[in-house]
Amino acid sequence: MITKLKQIKDERGKLIVFEKDNNLTFDLKRTYFIYYKSSLDRGFHAHYNTNQLLVCLNGTVKIVLDDGYKKTKITLNNSENGIFVPKMIWHYMTDASSDCIMTVMADKLYDKNDYIRDYNKFINEIK
Amino acid sequence: MITKLKQIKDERGKLIVFEKDNNLTFDLKRTYFIYYKSSLDRGFHAHYNTNQLLVCLNGTVKIVLDDGYKKTKITLNNSENGIFVPKMIWHYMTDASSDCIMTVMADKLYDKNDYIRDYNKFINEIK
Repeated sequence: MITKLKQIKDERGKLIVFEKDNNLTFDLKRTYFIYYKSSLDRGFHAHYNTNQLLVCLNGTVKIVLDDGYKKTKITLNNSENGIFVPKMIWHYMTDASSDCIMTVMADKLYDKNDYIRDYNKFINEIK
Repeated sequence: MITKLKQIKDERGKLIVFEKDNNLTFDLKRTYFIYYKSSLDRGFHAHYNTNQLLVCLNGTVKIVLDDGYKKTKITLNNSENGIFVPKMIWHYMTDASSDCIMTVMADKLYDKNDYIRDYNKFINEIK
């Protein structure tokens, strides 16, 4: 689920573009940014229908992905890679550095009914 | 054109969401990130049809906006504010710090024909 991001580098710095068919496999509808001021974990949900791409823009963070059968922990510590998190994957972020800035790009607008926030309910939905 | 961004703050840090009617006045289609490794200016174009929101996620940068009649220079040095840059505004970025990370959100997919990269042509289109 690690996605190598296409980057446009020159003497001025670098540019990373996200739109359908350019570092994204989906139509972009929503994006959000997370700044961590403490090392408290966050996330702990799955989506019924939303697919997302997670990118760590600064600092470092670990992402735990859980498909109901297997847990995977991936470290993001640069903007060269993203993690594609499809629908129905339980996920949370842990061990973020205090300078961590994350962005998430999603293919759906916000809908509170799209969230599964109870792990047992997630497992029941998977099985 | 400075837009105060709605932020969701708690003990874990903060979250800034961008989607239509939530920190954005338009449907999101494309986003990109700029990392500055030198203090070289960048931008120097206007768009025929694209509206954009510029946010400085880290560090500092100055944005120069030019409607063909008047130039305005705005410093962005936090993620509390964004700058809305509507179509047909010549703009460039200057004095970026080496730790600057900028994001731009746009209401159109990339189209090279949407760019005006010659200042005299921009002025002629405006007048």
